[in-house]
Amino acid sequence: MVFGIENSAAFTIGQRNFGGDSGMKRIKLTVAYDGTNYCGWQIQPNGITIEEVLNDHLSRLLQEEIKVIGASRTDSGVHALGNVAVFDTDTRIPAEKISYALNQKLPEDIRIRDSREVAQTFHPRNCGSLKTYEYRILNQRFDIPTHRLYSYFFYVPLDVEAMQRGAAHLVGRHDFGSFCAANTPVRDMVREVTSIDVRRGEPFVTITVTGKGFLYNMVRIIAGTLIRVGTGYYAPEEVGDILAARDRGRAGPTAPARGLTLVGIQYEE
Amino acid sequence: MVFGIENSAAFTIGQRNFGGDSGMKRIKLTVAYDGTNYCGWQIQPNGITIEEVLNDHLSRLLQEEIKVIGASRTDSGVHALGNVAVFDTDTRIPAEKISYALNQKLPEDIRIRDSREVAQTFHPRNCGSLKTYEYRILNQRFDIPTHRLYSYFFYVPLDVEAMQRGAAHLVGRHDFGSFCAANTPVRDMVREVTSIDVRRGEPFVTITVTGKGFLYNMVRIIAGTLIRVGTGYYAPEEVGDILAARDRGRAGPTAPARGLTLVGIQYEE
Repeated sequence: MVFGIENSAAFTIGQRNFGGDSGMKRIKLTVAYDGTNYCGWQIQPNGITIEEVLNDHLSRLLQEEIKVIGASRTDSGVHALGNVAVFDTDTRIPAEKISYALNQKLPEDIRIRDSREVAQTFHPRNCGSLKTYEYRILNQRFDIPTHRLYSYFFYVPLDVEAMQRGAAHLVGRHDFGSFCAANTPVRDMVREVTSIDVRRGEPFVTITVTGKGFLYNMVRIIAGTLIRVGTGYYAPEEVGDILAARDRGRAGPTAPARGLTLVGIQYEE
Repeated sequence: MVFGIENSAAFTIGQRNFGGDSGMKRIKLTVAYDGTNYCGWQIQPNGITIEEVLNDHLSRLLQEEIKVIGASRTDSGVHALGNVAVFDTDTRIPAEKISYALNQKLPEDIRIRDSREVAQTFHPRNCGSLKTYEYRILNQRFDIPTHRLYSYFFYVPLDVEAMQRGAAHLVGRHDFGSFCAANTPVRDMVREVTSIDVRRGEPFVTITVTGKGFLYNMVRIIAGTLIRVGTGYYAPEEVGDILAARDRGRAGPTAPARGLTLVGIQYEE
């Protein structure tokens, strides 16, 4: 496993040195949230973030300074059913109880679905992990108010079969430069998408994307591009050309954040 | 058809008399809303209501004073996919276009799914109509933030089969006094429930109730009672005894508003 340099520093914060047997353990949290009222995962000066709320509540609960490291730094307004975060602690509270204790205190739009101890070598941005995202499009004549916060309302009828054929061009290991937000300071834009599934389950069209890592806004740009395939604006084959161009200007728009949910992250055993 | 005296008055408001052919028509709206931020349907002094927002926007759009009459005066926090409202107008805007024009202006938590002209004799609280409500229980160990606004989180595992057996006692024409909010000034508590269906579709247990009319809080008290059956607190047979008692004190608690959605209303042709 390869850890980035920026991460190893954070991993020592909050550790106390008790000599040979410090009792320090690494805890993995599975986190669900409604991203509507947050400026995304990562701490930033302009607004409240999931990371910040977790750090505050964990630090208070465990009476030590906790800084979590998240698997996916979801954008402002993006939701999660199963993001993953880890932190180190010397608390005596059993790992499994932390979720219950934390859920008593967290705002109701963040919930810890699971807390457990993992090996000290476990890192949430492990290269071997597979992330699954769902992009939901409410595709009918009128929006449904009770779905509006968790889907993107798009009233033009979508051709799901064409979208699926277009999506097939993206599966595999490719340079996804056309599907990365412009001006992102990333050198290597090669990523591996293991599957994309487009299906209709009334009133939604749902795009499910699984991959080993994603560029900034990648799933939302894939969604915006496949929506254009669904309306007939792009032919399904053009998705291959767009991918080959490695040019953000060639792909469709970035679909709105509210339609995106990080469903879960699977780690190698 | 029998109209209540309190309704006939409202039906003349906003009418203009142009002699023999006034051009006055009755419009039926099918209304969906997220009830989270409203004090229910009916206009009241303490907060904003769906009825008030519709009256304001219709009056502005049609340039006449409009007062809608709703089929179901849903409670504070209750949602709807298909509530029905009617109003009379002499507008020249085609009935079918009113939904589109209104949706441009309404807040995003209210949407008109359909607008059409109906006979002057159509009344939304027509005795022959069938209303369907859904009560959704999020029944697993942890709440899911993206579902919290539209379901009631209840973590004790529910026995759906027992709930269904308990529910069977409520189907038919009965005095539902045990399932009506205390101190409601209603004389006749006889109502007809045509079906109750309890089923599990992960992560929810959903209670679907259809009937010809409901008492105040009736579906929420049915839900609160069936949840007690699902935990084993009541045996399924006890639901029959509770019904026979005609005593609000015998039934379960009123389940929270957020779990309830008025799915739709079916009218006789």
